[in-house]
Amino acid sequence: MNLVTILGLIAASLTTGSFLPQAIKAIRTKQTKDLSLGMYTALTTGIALWLIYGVLVKDIPIIASNCVTLVFTSAILFLKLRYK
Amino acid sequence: MNLVTILGLIAASLTTGSFLPQAIKAIRTKQTKDLSLGMYTALTTGIALWLIYGVLVKDIPIIASNCVTLVFTSAILFLKLRYK
Repeated sequence: MNLVTILGLIAASLTTGSFLPQAIKAIRTKQTKDLSLGMYTALTTGIALWLIYGVLVKDIPIIASNCVTLVFTSAILFLKLRYK
Repeated sequence: MNLVTILGLIAASLTTGSFLPQAIKAIRTKQTKDLSLGMYTALTTGIALWLIYGVLVKDIPIIASNCVTLVFTSAILFLKLRYK
């Protein structure tokens, strides 16, 4: 694996994993007032479409990263709707 | 342009544009308490690495979408640090 591929994998891990601390924070504090409902609605819809796109073009990295991100952003959207 | 490419472009527009309502909300309310600093630190770093990756592999869609997203997530990170 070359350095450029490793850079891409680090980038993908950071952007995918970044939503986990937000989900944990919302679960712990039960506070989501400052989160934008519009952001998490558009983001979760967009990630779901990326996942469908990945399946259609048979791209495993797109499928894998968007599967994980979809779990996190759906959880944050659910918490936003629950604790708004 | 085929339907799969159009689907990918819609997905990219939604995930890129989703951060705009969050930035606007934080500017208007001056409240960022519920936003995760860890999320926006990891996300902004990851998007910056995606941009470098896009430049290295000469992929215009990766460069374009991550340029726009980097502006939005950097703005939210700045607002989080300012109004924490």
